[in-house]
Amino acid sequence: MCGVFGVYNSKTPAEDTFYGLYSIQHRGQEAAGVVVAGYDEMKNKTVFRQHKGMGLVAEVFKNPGIFNKLPGHAAIGHNRYSTTGASKSSSNIQPFSHTYRSGNLAIAHNGNLTNSRQLRKELTEQGVIFQASSDTEIIPHLAARSREKEPVHQIYQALRQVQGAFSLVILANDQLIAARDPHGVRPLALGKTINPETGEPVFYIASETCAFDILSVEYVRDIEPGEILMIDKQAVKTGKPVSLFLPPSQRKARCIFEYVYFARPDSIVFNHPVDKIRRNLGKNLARESKVESTKEEQQIVISVPDSSNTAALGFVRESNKICRPARFEHGLIRNHYVGRTFIQPGKEDREIKVRSKYNIIRGVLHDRQIVVIDDSIVRGTTAKMLIKLIREAEPKKIHLHISSAPITNPCFYGMDFPTKGQLLTYMFSDAKDNEEEIEKIRDYIGVDSLKYLSLQGMLNSAPRFDNEIQSYCTACFTGDYPISIKDACCKKEEYDCEE
Amino acid sequence: MCGVFGVYNSKTPAEDTFYGLYSIQHRGQEAAGVVVAGYDEMKNKTVFRQHKGMGLVAEVFKNPGIFNKLPGHAAIGHNRYSTTGASKSSSNIQPFSHTYRSGNLAIAHNGNLTNSRQLRKELTEQGVIFQASSDTEIIPHLAARSREKEPVHQIYQALRQVQGAFSLVILANDQLIAARDPHGVRPLALGKTINPETGEPVFYIASETCAFDILSVEYVRDIEPGEILMIDKQAVKTGKPVSLFLPPSQRKARCIFEYVYFARPDSIVFNHPVDKIRRNLGKNLARESKVESTKEEQQIVISVPDSSNTAALGFVRESNKICRPARFEHGLIRNHYVGRTFIQPGKEDREIKVRSKYNIIRGVLHDRQIVVIDDSIVRGTTAKMLIKLIREAEPKKIHLHISSAPITNPCFYGMDFPTKGQLLTYMFSDAKDNEEEIEKIRDYIGVDSLKYLSLQGMLNSAPRFDNEIQSYCTACFTGDYPISIKDACCKKEEYDCEE
Amino acid sequence: MCGVFGVYNSKTPAEDTFYGLYSIQHRGQEAAGVVVAGYDEMKNKTVFRQHKGMGLVAEVFKNPGIFNKLPGHAAIGHNRYSTTGASKSSSNIQPFSHTYRSGNLAIAHNGNLTNSRQLRKELTEQGVIFQASSDTEIIPHLAARSREKEPVHQIYQALRQVQGAFSLVILANDQLIAARDPHGVRPLALGKTINPETGEPVFYIASETCAFDILSVEYVRDIEPGEILMIDKQAVKTGKPVSLFLPPSQRKARCIFEYVYFARPDSIVFNHPVDKIRRNLGKNLARESKVESTKEEQQIVISVPDSSNTAALGFVRESNKICRPARFEHGLIRNHYVGRTFIQPGKEDREIKVRSKYNIIRGVLHDRQIVVIDDSIVRGTTAKMLIKLIREAEPKKIHLHISSAPITNPCFYGMDFPTKGQLLTYMFSDAKDNEEEIEKIRDYIGVDSLKYLSLQGMLNSAPRFDNEIQSYCTACFTGDYPISIKDACCKKEEYDCEE
Amino acid sequence: MCGVFGVYNSKTPAEDTFYGLYSIQHRGQEAAGVVVAGYDEMKNKTVFRQHKGMGLVAEVFKNPGIFNKLPGHAAIGHNRYSTTGASKSSSNIQPFSHTYRSGNLAIAHNGNLTNSRQLRKELTEQGVIFQASSDTEIIPHLAARSREKEPVHQIYQALRQVQGAFSLVILANDQLIAARDPHGVRPLALGKTINPETGEPVFYIASETCAFDILSVEYVRDIEPGEILMIDKQAVKTGKPVSLFLPPSQRKARCIFEYVYFARPDSIVFNHPVDKIRRNLGKNLARESKVESTKEEQQIVISVPDSSNTAALGFVRESNKICRPARFEHGLIRNHYVGRTFIQPGKEDREIKVRSKYNIIRGVLHDRQIVVIDDSIVRGTTAKMLIKLIREAEPKKIHLHISSAPITNPCFYGMDFPTKGQLLTYMFSDAKDNEEEIEKIRDYIGVDSLKYLSLQGMLNSAPRFDNEIQSYCTACFTGDYPISIKDACCKKEEYDCEE
Repeated sequence: MCGVFGVYNSKTPAEDTFYGLYSIQHRGQEAAGVVVAGYDEMKNKTVFRQHKGMGLVAEVFKNPGIFNKLPGHAAIGHNRYSTTGASKSSSNIQPFSHTYRSGNLAIAHNGNLTNSRQLRKELTEQGVIFQASSDTEIIPHLAARSREKEPVHQIYQALRQVQGAFSLVILANDQLIAARDPHGVRPLALGKTINPETGEPVFYIASETCAFDILSVEYVRDIEPGEILMIDKQAVKTGKPVSLFLPPSQRKARCIFEYVYFARPDSIVFNHPVDKIRRNLGKNLARESKVESTKEEQQIVISVPDSSNTAALGFVRESNKICRPARFEHGLIRNHYVGRTFIQPGKEDREIKVRSKYNIIRGVLHDRQIVVIDDSIVRGTTAKMLIKLIREAEPKKIHLHISSAPITNPCFYGMDFPTKGQLLTYMFSDAKDNEEEIEKIRDYIGVDSLKYLSLQGMLNSAPRFDNEIQSYCTACFTGDYPISIKDACCKKEEYDCEE
Repeated sequence: MCGVFGVYNSKTPAEDTFYGLYSIQHRGQEAAGVVVAGYDEMKNKTVFRQHKGMGLVAEVFKNPGIFNKLPGHAAIGHNRYSTTGASKSSSNIQPFSHTYRSGNLAIAHNGNLTNSRQLRKELTEQGVIFQASSDTEIIPHLAARSREKEPVHQIYQALRQVQGAFSLVILANDQLIAARDPHGVRPLALGKTINPETGEPVFYIASETCAFDILSVEYVRDIEPGEILMIDKQAVKTGKPVSLFLPPSQRKARCIFEYVYFARPDSIVFNHPVDKIRRNLGKNLARESKVESTKEEQQIVISVPDSSNTAALGFVRESNKICRPARFEHGLIRNHYVGRTFIQPGKEDREIKVRSKYNIIRGVLHDRQIVVIDDSIVRGTTAKMLIKLIREAEPKKIHLHISSAPITNPCFYGMDFPTKGQLLTYMFSDAKDNEEEIEKIRDYIGVDSLKYLSLQGMLNSAPRFDNEIQSYCTACFTGDYPISIKDACCKKEEYDCEE
Repeated sequence: MCGVFGVYNSKTPAEDTFYGLYSIQHRGQEAAGVVVAGYDEMKNKTVFRQHKGMGLVAEVFKNPGIFNKLPGHAAIGHNRYSTTGASKSSSNIQPFSHTYRSGNLAIAHNGNLTNSRQLRKELTEQGVIFQASSDTEIIPHLAARSREKEPVHQIYQALRQVQGAFSLVILANDQLIAARDPHGVRPLALGKTINPETGEPVFYIASETCAFDILSVEYVRDIEPGEILMIDKQAVKTGKPVSLFLPPSQRKARCIFEYVYFARPDSIVFNHPVDKIRRNLGKNLARESKVESTKEEQQIVISVPDSSNTAALGFVRESNKICRPARFEHGLIRNHYVGRTFIQPGKEDREIKVRSKYNIIRGVLHDRQIVVIDDSIVRGTTAKMLIKLIREAEPKKIHLHISSAPITNPCFYGMDFPTKGQLLTYMFSDAKDNEEEIEKIRDYIGVDSLKYLSLQGMLNSAPRFDNEIQSYCTACFTGDYPISIKDACCKKEEYDCEE
Repeated sequence: MCGVFGVYNSKTPAEDTFYGLYSIQHRGQEAAGVVVAGYDEMKNKTVFRQHKGMGLVAEVFKNPGIFNKLPGHAAIGHNRYSTTGASKSSSNIQPFSHTYRSGNLAIAHNGNLTNSRQLRKELTEQGVIFQASSDTEIIPHLAARSREKEPVHQIYQALRQVQGAFSLVILANDQLIAARDPHGVRPLALGKTINPETGEPVFYIASETCAFDILSVEYVRDIEPGEILMIDKQAVKTGKPVSLFLPPSQRKARCIFEYVYFARPDSIVFNHPVDKIRRNLGKNLARESKVESTKEEQQIVISVPDSSNTAALGFVRESNKICRPARFEHGLIRNHYVGRTFIQPGKEDREIKVRSKYNIIRGVLHDRQIVVIDDSIVRGTTAKMLIKLIREAEPKKIHLHISSAPITNPCFYGMDFPTKGQLLTYMFSDAKDNEEEIEKIRDYIGVDSLKYLSLQGMLNSAPRFDNEIQSYCTACFTGDYPISIKDACCKKEEYDCEE
């Protein structure tokens, strides 16, 4: 996963990008970068300046003087999330910046291309050299090889050739271009504010709308699936950016996991507030739940903070509505200082990691019937440790409820899931049926009961979009991949240049 | 405020201290340090080794090799919280370590001495020189000047001379000493675990019990007000540390603000779970509240996360019990990545700070009657900005409820409150009565109603201790200072050596 | 200027490269990098790993663990010297590393291409994108577009198209390739040692042979002008690398400034010891000198340490031989700690810079007739300050003797000279003749007499090569550029992507 | 060894101290610090501000903003040289700064106290606590315990009690005090300049006068042995600082090793130019030398750069005078980039260290009779490696001449010599006489002949001072310690608090 941000016609594009990236930090903690387009009076033309680094946004930009060195009117930025080998290289930090026949081109990408191997092969056969191991680098190469004159048309032609998931922000000389793949896998939103001094519009692009809120920017609309939006001086004058559309796909493939876990609850994603959908997931989970509850011994519902807070509230409300008394409580405390600088000297086991992140409130849990709401289980190791921790408070029973279905397949569209073999479900794939599999997982994790939300329950929770054959990608739950993964390369280790 | 930690008879005292300090990071984010006592085979005696630095615990100890350089059997550690001038000096980072006639002595202090000026004057007149501007340095000087032979008795004599608030951990050669002032202002707890290999006890001391939880250490009891607890090889053998007691004070002065805001909710403080007391504060606030509510238009109760979460839950539960329908919601989202590395380039106003830390969930707040629960108001600037932010969701009404009384006086016992003139209440101190003052504050902050919990409501929420004339210090709410502040010096600027 | 290094068939290629780069640090202090080729057992093929950074070699590699992360059998490295705008970008640190159709390709370059603008234009028109503003990047692009299959032939074809000065080390998968332009502008040498364990040869390539000495490597010979040397497994077996030759140029253009100033005196450059040539420069300068000297009042000859030490010794020896009594003395002391981390707080004038680097020995200089030997004058500001400093010792007279001719033109082949307008000679270009110009410079610098070595004197000092029309480039002294500079771009500011 | 610096009545005391410390960097590379006395308008009094750190001066002060944070009118600074265990602690970085009954007191010390153990014992028995393991800390304690009112008298009383070597700079509130022990072991000089704006004198104190040269400050005179010089506002008015004198010692003990090796040749030390004395050492060495030399086969004399350069020149000149033909040559090149950041990855042997620092010039050495001049031999390992390196040039013969006598005893007065057992001479202390010892050392180092300058030759080289029983300390050559070392503690490991 990654986060992207763009801004056009601001007096402080680098600062804006800093705040934007800061608010979507959850989409990528490994590295961050910004490229700014600014007019250089000495050279009498627009130049690109950049700053990038490994670490959190606030670390990369901790030197306060950095913004003075990045003047301009437009910028793009990127947060990288990745832990696989090759990506550790600093040459893979986005945005990537290039000069080519039409001038300067910088690009930042959220998603994953599924035909990058094939395209890379074709391009190298034509004599192209690659600096980084990222699939993103293919796009500027394709654009540069287009016969078109206008960068936006070059980009259009490039994007017609790539398959997969992409939400892009691009600086092409003094234009800002945003693009989203025709399946609409990853979110991308347009925002706007008015510069009070000039009366001119300032345009913003972001993976999530919480990046607009921090800057008091108004959310206008989503970049539509297949849309290429071009913002330039003309757009500032008219207030209207220009759109091109890639050939449409009737089948959409919005990542439902954005609603389940990934996006911040205060964002609008795919035109709908994440908070509301996440609450629906909790409600539907309550309806499907079978845990008994009486007035005398009502359920104590706790969330794994903070990602499951909203689902837990939805669960409690619905439970009470259907006369299954439930009470929301804070039974787990999340340490505020958990971050990437954290180390585990000596004690390398997972237990200290969980204890460093969470602590229990015994008074809330002791001798009670507990329903723990979590959003998903990937490897299962954290869940197992967390349950062990909760057990120390000696609750009567622990019921683990997951506000999504079991994850059974890796993601090839940009979510950093492990390989199939590392997923918890794989461990129990020899179960004779679903029921037995769940029972085995329950036993492994060590809870009194385990309930996953059904796939239908998930889909019912998410917004409906008219005139679409299907609206969501559920591949990680079903193995039904909406975009061909024949050529897909989920492992980046295939490229060899590391740092 | 500060956090202290100590450990005795561990194989990994530096690591243990790292985790302990990490879990009480909220008590001080400016600097951290550890001193380890270890036997040096070459020198054939116990030596002290230390590591200290500015910044968060995880930053100070980010070099993973550091723990190998700090072998030993006992350690003490300290988190410093402070933003006033002189304290920025690295020579003020605790623990302070000294050699003196009885060997080595290291000390870490949470609290504030109120007769430090007088003592410092007396000592300097006797020819004492001071390295740091901290009042803590007085204690080892007094100990070194005692005629006693045993460090614990030297410490005893030193502590008889100081007044004020102190929770101390001290390494004296190969002994660990913990001490708490007779008024019991700051918390200090004793923990224990059994080394599975040797069967011997390992002893722990910490400001809060959450530092025990991260290490799977069992909470034994509080260090009592006036107690000096000495842990040495003998204590390992018998399992029983030895206690001395300073002359008792009938009047106790536990800091009630630890319950209101400062301590973590998962800690046990003053023998009682913070979570429970904080919930009581919410309950009593609900009882005192006058906001109307009906089934049709019930209150939406939101907390300022995470410090007011527990009070908000208590408030909701009690409201519903007394037939004033209320619903707990997550209306504010707290950014996980807020930390001390954060910068505010260019935009130095407070608004971006608040926006960087919090965001609203419009769907929860819009067109609703909102009760915002916050734990306290100090300067009022953050509260004002936060309300402005909530207003953007266009709620029907905003009722601000504070789970403590108005803060009207500075703290001289270790809480880093601003001077009287900087407190919000000071701005309106010309109000003709209480009612008018509250009305003016309400107007300033911009809410539809404002309710503080009464002092009595606070005291009713906190645990009762038998046979005490008074159990709590409420000076910041009342100006009634339980320990004389005639000689007190809340400003450290008086000492001149800065770095 | 820059320094390059390569090694093949070593057990410790990264360490070897570190020491090699360390010993040619004087060729570039701004940035350093290494790329290592190593066999990856997991991937079952050769992969490239790299480490680069701004600063001195010892700073870039200060983390001692870095070498464990760079295993392999071959490596190339680069020291960058540059202070112009665009080059400050970390994306310009060499070696550059790429993947392309034939695998991996990394390149490090000393020199400057003179037709890079034209080639860059042609390439971008074909759709090529550039990451960095360096002209070096052109070479891998040309190689990748060649129809040849073998990397060494691709490189051959690429180098046929470029003009200018280049001494290159290239890693192509598991081969090491070294190449030098047909004019032979920059030096490049081949070294060899025998691994005592395996009996196999280990091959080394370096800009200067002092990089061999630090590693106890034997100097074999120079890479010849126009030679492309390919070292692979076969070369290890046979002990003989294979050579290709670019179309030869009868006119050679070895940079005579390497002898005058740039190379280390303990290096062999262009097949001859620098020390010897530099001594010749001093001798010829003595012959041309007109300073009177008697036994009673002999000349005191001092050098500007350390670059002029050898010329000064040659000067003294020859002077005495031709009965002009002279005595070598250390009259100026060079501060050992001068380095790039140096700052000039407040006092930004050049005087403190000179005083920080040099100090005088009054006893040596006072009341004496001093001949100061310096190797060259570029801007003249340092010389002026240095003379001012020497004046403080109140010598009788100061005669400044320069062991090269006046610099009148910029270098387009890799030496970081300022533009014409910044050269000292430009200030006096309106002089009616040579004599007047020298007189004006003498007056400006403030010496009693000023003597430059004649161009012929320089050429007589340098080694002769048979069958060459001309052997040296003297363009900076004469304006006679041996390689066309019509298209040359000495300014890198034309490319726009900065960091 | 260490370097100290002080300045009074400057507008830029911190910058001045930076430059001063920078120029005496050779006296200590491990750590550096400055304390500035400045008037604080807000506090209406003089305050001390400090900046200290591990590393070279240019590293410690690399942040250019640091000087703005250190305003004032006076400052003292210190360079620390030390590699023994305890000193690595950052709590040992000088100047030490304290508050005490008379205000602020900061101190920087070059030398070593020989009765520090006894004094430390007495002080701790009186209840004094020590922060650092440095003997310097004793002085402020003694001063603070004096009954005197004026800091300068307190210092006087303190210094009457200490024995050993001390050159001190002290800031006492707004006074600058310089002091030198009665034996005059370490140098200390007074400098002066006139502020052109105010016409007032600015006073400077430094270990060596090269610190004056960098600032264009005029050397006035040495601080005399036993002198305590006090500079305050009155001294600015009158132009005359006031002096007190400790009880005099007829026997002086100037460290002759300052002349042999330690001081910079461009400094005036003990009232005489180091360069001249070092040249005398070379001359006397030539007179004592027995190496034959003819016109046909004259000696090639090379120095180990840069420390032996001057002695080598003196040697050559005298040799020629006494008709033993000799020629000075640069046969060894010293790498400019040698510094403390240097690492030896993998190859930990001493050989790579020597190769990293020096390289040979084969053309100078090959087939010649070489006389290598070095200033001293301590452990002998470097000399042995260096000779091995020179052998690679295949000289006919190597004669090693040392411009000092054999070092046979450790220094207790501040020179960082190893213990007796680590000195090269110790290895051969079983030799039956001097001659055999020298022969064994010659064999060990691997030269054709070895010659040390005689003790008398050394003393004849150094300046004579009238009316002194003895003028120099030669303890390291003779074991005759001029100041009692009964109680001396050359090992700092006795104090236990490390960092």
